[in-house]
Amino acid sequence: MSGRLSSTERNEALGALPAWTLDEDREAIRRKFQFADFNAAFAFMARVALQAEKMDHHPEWSNVYNKVEILLSTHDAGGLTQKDIALAHFIDAVAG
Amino acid sequence: MSGRLSSTERNEALGALPAWTLDEDREAIRRKFQFADFNAAFAFMARVALQAEKMDHHPEWSNVYNKVEILLSTHDAGGLTQKDIALAHFIDAVAG
Repeated sequence: MSGRLSSTERNEALGALPAWTLDEDREAIRRKFQFADFNAAFAFMARVALQAEKMDHHPEWSNVYNKVEILLSTHDAGGLTQKDIALAHFIDAVAG
Repeated sequence: MSGRLSSTERNEALGALPAWTLDEDREAIRRKFQFADFNAAFAFMARVALQAEKMDHHPEWSNVYNKVEILLSTHDAGGLTQKDIALAHFIDAVAG
């Protein structure tokens, strides 16, 4: 389950995550989010952080006021795994 | 109180913040932090977020697992102000 996805598996998974873009260099996926204000942005980050800790799979992310940018990749596997896809779906659901 | 600091005021303020480095291009200050794990890193971020919201002055920051990088500057003033210095002191105190 935590093996690196083949390009076929990756494309199939990304088909269900249209808001995410593939970063070929990093073999990662990225998405930018914009919220009403810092309160909303950090509330979102807190929900993602709790889930990340539960999954023991953590995002690379940055925040400037109401904006959050997230990059997902699995360092141990050297690329994208099902963990990234699962976390991306969770994040999409939280972002609404 | 929220005016841009003169270079003399800036140097004096930075003397009391030895762990921060001046980013001349951005007219900002930066510091990198490393914690035991993601739990500790995000707990730190949550404390900083609450204070930032209280001050209505927010960091630019990024997090990768146990690492947090923070940049402080006052966009409205086009550079460093006392708000950045005050937030940096709070952050130093929280980071311990």
